[in-house]
Amino acid sequence: MNHLLSIDDLDRAELEGLLDLSDQFVAVNQRDIPKVPALRGKVVASLFYENSTRTRLSFETAAKRLSCDVMTFSVSTSSINKGEDLRDTAQTIAAMGIDALVIRHPAAGAPHRVGTWIDAAIINAGDGCHAHPTQALLDVLTLRQHRGPSLDGLRVAIVGDIAHSRVARSATAALHMLGAEVTLVAPPTLLPSSLEGWSVAVSHDLDDVISETDVIMLLRIQLERQQEALFPTLREYTARYGLTAARASRLKPDALVMHPGPMNRGIEVAAEVADGPMSVVTEQVTNGVAVRMAVLYTLLGSGAPVA
Amino acid sequence: MNHLLSIDDLDRAELEGLLDLSDQFVAVNQRDIPKVPALRGKVVASLFYENSTRTRLSFETAAKRLSCDVMTFSVSTSSINKGEDLRDTAQTIAAMGIDALVIRHPAAGAPHRVGTWIDAAIINAGDGCHAHPTQALLDVLTLRQHRGPSLDGLRVAIVGDIAHSRVARSATAALHMLGAEVTLVAPPTLLPSSLEGWSVAVSHDLDDVISETDVIMLLRIQLERQQEALFPTLREYTARYGLTAARASRLKPDALVMHPGPMNRGIEVAAEVADGPMSVVTEQVTNGVAVRMAVLYTLLGSGAPVA
Amino acid sequence: MNHLLSIDDLDRAELEGLLDLSDQFVAVNQRDIPKVPALRGKVVASLFYENSTRTRLSFETAAKRLSCDVMTFSVSTSSINKGEDLRDTAQTIAAMGIDALVIRHPAAGAPHRVGTWIDAAIINAGDGCHAHPTQALLDVLTLRQHRGPSLDGLRVAIVGDIAHSRVARSATAALHMLGAEVTLVAPPTLLPSSLEGWSVAVSHDLDDVISETDVIMLLRIQLERQQEALFPTLREYTARYGLTAARASRLKPDALVMHPGPMNRGIEVAAEVADGPMSVVTEQVTNGVAVRMAVLYTLLGSGAPVA
Repeated sequence: MNHLLSIDDLDRAELEGLLDLSDQFVAVNQRDIPKVPALRGKVVASLFYENSTRTRLSFETAAKRLSCDVMTFSVSTSSINKGEDLRDTAQTIAAMGIDALVIRHPAAGAPHRVGTWIDAAIINAGDGCHAHPTQALLDVLTLRQHRGPSLDGLRVAIVGDIAHSRVARSATAALHMLGAEVTLVAPPTLLPSSLEGWSVAVSHDLDDVISETDVIMLLRIQLERQQEALFPTLREYTARYGLTAARASRLKPDALVMHPGPMNRGIEVAAEVADGPMSVVTEQVTNGVAVRMAVLYTLLGSGAPVA
Repeated sequence: MNHLLSIDDLDRAELEGLLDLSDQFVAVNQRDIPKVPALRGKVVASLFYENSTRTRLSFETAAKRLSCDVMTFSVSTSSINKGEDLRDTAQTIAAMGIDALVIRHPAAGAPHRVGTWIDAAIINAGDGCHAHPTQALLDVLTLRQHRGPSLDGLRVAIVGDIAHSRVARSATAALHMLGAEVTLVAPPTLLPSSLEGWSVAVSHDLDDVISETDVIMLLRIQLERQQEALFPTLREYTARYGLTAARASRLKPDALVMHPGPMNRGIEVAAEVADGPMSVVTEQVTNGVAVRMAVLYTLLGSGAPVA
Repeated sequence: MNHLLSIDDLDRAELEGLLDLSDQFVAVNQRDIPKVPALRGKVVASLFYENSTRTRLSFETAAKRLSCDVMTFSVSTSSINKGEDLRDTAQTIAAMGIDALVIRHPAAGAPHRVGTWIDAAIINAGDGCHAHPTQALLDVLTLRQHRGPSLDGLRVAIVGDIAHSRVARSATAALHMLGAEVTLVAPPTLLPSSLEGWSVAVSHDLDDVISETDVIMLLRIQLERQQEALFPTLREYTARYGLTAARASRLKPDALVMHPGPMNRGIEVAAEVADGPMSVVTEQVTNGVAVRMAVLYTLLGSGAPVA
């Protein structure tokens, strides 16, 4: 493994290897001093062309806990002009001496292209509507913690704006690889035009599938999509696709509620559900640090066991 | 002590304990290598909903000198919508694994509410017009350095926009606890509508009180208040409430001039006074790092003596 | 050496001393763990009044590799009002306890003034159109690596907006001190009104000088200058002053192409030249970290040999 660009680049053994390693870092993070010297002197740069303090800080926290040094490049949206700029920026960062580059970019495939220009491990922290592999890793790690190493036959509903969601795409790939059965639930306007290669079922009616769902993953509604007329009103969206308290009561008693954050409480998920006993949302965040440690450790480490 | 939300939460012994500890960190900060390993592995997050590079860096410097790791959340004003968002953000930060959260928020009481949602020590770095306890601690620490441990009978005038000032409110509480006598000096439009619980004298005329003042603390005039017609013009404000050189010459020879910064030189304080021998403004900044070390050490430390 | 404000403050021995020390840090940076404990506990603050993530991160990387602690002040352009503010900010930063201040400011001479207000080593990271000494150091370090310690008789063409370029001014001074012969190439509108003290030749025609040039340094065209009617169109600029592939083919076979970055590929330099074998642009970036380490080490270190 030289880069982590997409779940599709992993085979099942590699995916499970990363999850097993993540389990070890979950334990490290529960220590009194949650740090290991494993990657001392390694330099990890983050280059985010989209605002995401959360994901960036999760990666940077992971890097620091492995004793890496961290360089943060924040790029204002106004300076995204053309591919040339990305190359110039990436080569400049690389020339300062880095070992890994964590990159988020609005263009699908940008992390891959950067990997052809510079000599550093590239970690995709989200590229357009394409992929967000560490989010998928933290999702399946969270499910493994609750349901054991195999997700065979687990029924997962992913609900919301699938068409624009790299989270849905990466999560589906990881879930499918571990044996789960995924149903995408969305109005037709929010589904991709083609589902070739997704290996999923589709529903337009959340009420139809909710009682048979083991895990429901709600996607964040991008409020600006409304202007594109992709759904009528927020109230209408919540009425048909929101996980309201009433709908949550129809879930199996041991069902799990997931969300990649940040949540629009009261829109795609009711506040009392988001903070209720079925929700594993904060566990997902906690696991995010551990999986990013596992990824960095795999890409930059010596291969020695975690100390 | 689990949190530091307001000076009102402290009794006199606790306040003086923090000041005594601050004295020790003043000494640490004068060492060649101004660091102690006391809080190694502890994670301090800063979450500022209002711009204040100065206060944030003072806290982060304090944390680093105690060997903490620091996570910085900068939140653009545009993303402050509703209380739900604050909860989501705070829970996300907490889920990444933090020991203390330093928070500044425009809503009075926000730090308190956050403390009910997450399991970390909360330090209020300023909430609306309510409180700014570490500023008050550095103010009284600076006075103790000049006047000895008791401030009994010390006459302190706080001049400016008291109504909107968490600095005035917290400083008054701390000064009163240590025996100082506080007079608030401001036009009626810049005084709080009720002074219940403040234990202060009030004056609308700086010239009336200046010659009997041991310490004058000038507040920053928020230039945008002018549009609210709370005072006529800046020139008028300076003429009546500014510490001009002429007015400063009427202070007692050993009087002290304080300001929480950043100063509007030429408005609330003349440049030659701000940089003159009575000014302790830069000492206040220096002491700010020490008191924040003392607060973090008290909240997160083992209770062992400072190494 | 107490500060580094301008190349003009150095004599040849000091300049070469910094370059020799930089060579040592180039070697340090190639180690597996590119860090030395030399400046442990020293605090370096960066205060940038102009956006430049690259230069700021180069300095901060340099500081961290020497084991300094780093404080980053980002100042939004909107808060630059008057000199008084700069003083207030600088004194506040200094009062928190710093050893060096790296400052970039749009006003020529600002770093010098700051040095009169505070007690810390000042490093000029670019002030208006005046100076950018560490850029000049990395430029001549890069040339020394290719051409040996003496640059005697080396013909260097600096092409572009000389009038507004602190890079051109500082590079010329350093090149001249080491024996190189500098020709400034630009349309008359982009040359300074006086070249007194520059010790250079001037040409308005790149084609005239290109075949005799050993080193061509292209400056970034500031696209906003176009509105000031300083040159007709970008296409016209490229046609007359851009290093196109055709023009590059007329350079000597061992000529070097330099650029301070970020490059406008396709404007002042063709993409295939920027990424071609003559280009030393990424070497310049790499050397930038090393020269900044040398500067910090010289200003803050004990004088002991690099470990």
